[in-house]
Amino acid sequence: MRMVDLIEKKRNKEKLSKEEIDFIIKSYTAGEIPDYQMSALLMAIYFNKMDKEETLNLTLAMRDSGDTLDLSEIKGIKVDKHSTGGVGDKTTLVLGPMLAACGLKLAKMSGRGLGHTGGTIDKMESIPGFKTSLSMEAFVKQVNELGIAITGQTGNLAPADKKIYALRDVTATVEKISLIASSIMSKKLASGADSICLDVKVGSGAFMKTIEDAKKLASAMVEIGKGAGKSTIAIISEMDEPLGLAVGNSLEVREVIESLKGRGPKDLMELVYCLGSYMIKSAKPEVSLADARKLLAASITEGTALEKFKAFVKAQGGDENVVNDYSLLKIAPRVIEVLSKEEGYVAHIQSDLIGHASMILGGGRQRKEDTIDYGVGIELNKKVSDKILENELLAKIYVNDETNLANAIDDIYEAFRIEKEEIKEPVLIKEIVE
Amino acid sequence: MRMVDLIEKKRNKEKLSKEEIDFIIKSYTAGEIPDYQMSALLMAIYFNKMDKEETLNLTLAMRDSGDTLDLSEIKGIKVDKHSTGGVGDKTTLVLGPMLAACGLKLAKMSGRGLGHTGGTIDKMESIPGFKTSLSMEAFVKQVNELGIAITGQTGNLAPADKKIYALRDVTATVEKISLIASSIMSKKLASGADSICLDVKVGSGAFMKTIEDAKKLASAMVEIGKGAGKSTIAIISEMDEPLGLAVGNSLEVREVIESLKGRGPKDLMELVYCLGSYMIKSAKPEVSLADARKLLAASITEGTALEKFKAFVKAQGGDENVVNDYSLLKIAPRVIEVLSKEEGYVAHIQSDLIGHASMILGGGRQRKEDTIDYGVGIELNKKVSDKILENELLAKIYVNDETNLANAIDDIYEAFRIEKEEIKEPVLIKEIVE
Repeated sequence: MRMVDLIEKKRNKEKLSKEEIDFIIKSYTAGEIPDYQMSALLMAIYFNKMDKEETLNLTLAMRDSGDTLDLSEIKGIKVDKHSTGGVGDKTTLVLGPMLAACGLKLAKMSGRGLGHTGGTIDKMESIPGFKTSLSMEAFVKQVNELGIAITGQTGNLAPADKKIYALRDVTATVEKISLIASSIMSKKLASGADSICLDVKVGSGAFMKTIEDAKKLASAMVEIGKGAGKSTIAIISEMDEPLGLAVGNSLEVREVIESLKGRGPKDLMELVYCLGSYMIKSAKPEVSLADARKLLAASITEGTALEKFKAFVKAQGGDENVVNDYSLLKIAPRVIEVLSKEEGYVAHIQSDLIGHASMILGGGRQRKEDTIDYGVGIELNKKVSDKILENELLAKIYVNDETNLANAIDDIYEAFRIEKEEIKEPVLIKEIVE
Repeated sequence: MRMVDLIEKKRNKEKLSKEEIDFIIKSYTAGEIPDYQMSALLMAIYFNKMDKEETLNLTLAMRDSGDTLDLSEIKGIKVDKHSTGGVGDKTTLVLGPMLAACGLKLAKMSGRGLGHTGGTIDKMESIPGFKTSLSMEAFVKQVNELGIAITGQTGNLAPADKKIYALRDVTATVEKISLIASSIMSKKLASGADSICLDVKVGSGAFMKTIEDAKKLASAMVEIGKGAGKSTIAIISEMDEPLGLAVGNSLEVREVIESLKGRGPKDLMELVYCLGSYMIKSAKPEVSLADARKLLAASITEGTALEKFKAFVKAQGGDENVVNDYSLLKIAPRVIEVLSKEEGYVAHIQSDLIGHASMILGGGRQRKEDTIDYGVGIELNKKVSDKILENELLAKIYVNDETNLANAIDDIYEAFRIEKEEIKEPVLIKEIVE
C-alpha cells in the first residue's frame, strides 16, 4: 500500500477501505507517512468528504492509535459528557455532582482551555489545593467510591488525533463534519465510558455557526458512537450569549457552587437538567425523562449534590471549605463596572468577545504555555432579552493586572448589541439528536 | 502574511494576488514554508484551479526563484523548443542543425530521461566523447558561432519548480493544467530564449490523454509565454505510436543522421518541418510558413544541416566521424527479431510499452541514479496503418544484457494492436495553438 495512491483515491472521490484507513493512521502515528502527504490527504477529504463508514473507521483507527482506558473495574454505567466548547460553560461542574448524587458514575477526562473558551481543568484548579493529574488507579478508585472524578488527559490517548489536529490547524484543512466528529469521538471512545452525551454548541460564539452544520456534526458523532457500540446522544444548544453570568475561573466556580445551592442562572440550569435527564435515561432506560429530571431536582433541594461536590473537591486535594467561604477563591478585588451607554433591550451578547476580554485580563491562554490568573473575569448583569437603562450595569470586570483593561472594556461594549424593540427570550435547547 | 490564510483563501475558491504568490514561492524556496503547508495548497489548487493571471504570476515567481540565463550576448533571435515528452522523440536533434543551417540560434538546455521517455542529453552522450555539461561561457560562445548548442541544465534554474515538482509527485497533486504549464514555462523563461516553440504530445503514450486536455495545456503555456513577453506557439502532436522507428539512444542518433541525410521517417520529418517552419516564422516574421518549409528542405538537400550536425558534435567534443561510420555508436550486436503472430493491419502501438521495453533492456533509467546502456533499444518495422503478415517482422530488439529480454518481447507484443480491417494513416499534427 502506498500513501500516494490513497491520496489519489480520495482525490478522485473514491471510498477508502477500513484496511486503507488503518494503514494511514498506523503509519502516520509511527512517523512513516510524512506530514506533507497527510496534509494533502486532509485537503482532499476537505473537498471530497468521507462517508459514514469511512468516518467510523477513521475514528476507530485513531482511538486504537494509543492507550485506551479500561474502566471495567468501575461498577455500574460509566457516563461521559463532551461540549464542543462555549464561553462560561461550567455545566460539567454542576451536573457531575448531581449525577453522582443520583448514582451515576462520571469518569471524566478534561482538557485545558485555549483561546476564548475556558477548560474545566483550569476552573477546578482555581480551588486551592485541587489536583487534576490523577493516576489511573486513583481515578478509577475515586469514580468507584464517589461517583465522580475529573482528571487532565493522562497517558497517550489517541495520539494520531493529536498529530492530525496540529496539522489541520496550520494547513486550513479543518473539514467541518467528518474530521471534527472523528477527532472528538476518538478521544471519547478511548476514554472508555459506556454512555456518551454530547453538547454541540451553535451560534455566533461557537465553532458551528449554523443549525444545519451543528446538526450534521451531532449526527456524525452520534452515528460514530453507536457504530462503536456506545449509547450516544447529542444536544444542540445555543451559544449566542455566554452560558450563565460568570466568565473566568474562580468566578465560574462560585457560580457552580451557587447553582448547587439552588441559585443557578436559568439558562445554565436548563442545560444541566436537559443533559442530565438524558444521561440518567441512557444509564437507566427504565427511568423516564420526567422522572430523571425529578431525581436531579431532588439532588439540589436535598443538598446531596452540594455534598457530592464537597466530597469531590476534598478527594482531589482541594479545600472543601470553599463551598461556604468564597474568599478562598481569591477573586480579584478590583471591580470595574461597565455601564450601558444606551437604553433598550439586550439583543445579542457576542460570546467570543466576552471570552476574549476574560483571556486578555489573564484568565485564559493565548498560547499553550501561558499561565493563568484564576481570579479575574467578567460577570454579566444582563442577558439576552433583558431590558437595560442608560448608565445601568452591563457587566463587572474583575481585574488584577490592568494592562489590558481598556481593551477588555471595549470588548464588552462591542459584545453587547442593544436594540430599541423588545426581544424574545432565546430558546437554549435547539434539538436533541439520538 | 501567513501561509495558512493563503491556503484557506485558495481552498475557498478565492484568487491569490501577485504579492501572495510571490510570498509563497519565495518563502517555500527559502525553506520558511514547510512541505506540509505547500502540499495542502497544491491540493486546494488541484480542486479550485488557478486562473490565467495566477498561473502567469506563479510561473514568473518560479522563474525568479533562482538563476536566469542571460543570452543577450548571442546575436540574433534565440529560439527554444520543448516537448512534453514522447517515446522515440529525437526531433530536437534533427531540427536543431536544420534551424542553425537556416541562420537561427538554438540555445537549448535539456534534461536526462526518466521512465519510459528518453532525454536528448542521453541520446547525444551515446556519441563517443560528446560532452553535455558546458560552462555558461562555452555555451553562449558556441551558440553565437555555430547557431546550436545543447547542454544539461546548469546552475540553479527555477529551484522552486524543482521543489514543488518533487512534492507534487508524492502527494497526488499534479493538477493537469496550471501547475504543469507553470512548471514547464518557468524553466523555459529562465533559459532566456526570445521565442519558444512547444510540442504538446497527446494520446495513449502521452501525459495528456485527450485532445481537450492537450489544448488546455497548450493554451495555458502559450498565454504564459506571451504574458512574459515571449513569442510562443504550441503544436499538438499525436503520440499514439512512437515517433519514427528507433527507440533507444544510439539507435535514435543513427536515425537522426539518416534523417539529416534525407532518409528520415515520414512522421518524424512531418513534425520537424511543422515545428521548424513556425520557429523560423517566429524569428523572421517576414518569411512565410511555406518559404520557411522550403528553407528547411534545402538544408537537407544541400547537406548544410548535416554539416551543422557534424560541427555541433565536434564542438562539444564528440567524434564527428559517427556521421559516416555508425559502428562508432556501438549499437548492441545481438539482434532479436519479434515476428507477428497474426495477419492484419497495425491499429495502434502503445508508446509507453515500447519505451518500457527499451528501458528494461538498459536503455533508460527507472531511478535517477541508474546508468544507461546506450547501445540497446527497439527498432520498429511497422507503424500504424501498415499491413502485416503472420511471421512478418514487427520489430527488432538490440540487446546486451538479456536479463529482461523476455519481458521486453512481451512488452512489444502487448504494445502492437493488430486488426483485420484496413486502418487509415494517422494524422500527426492535431492543432496549432498560437
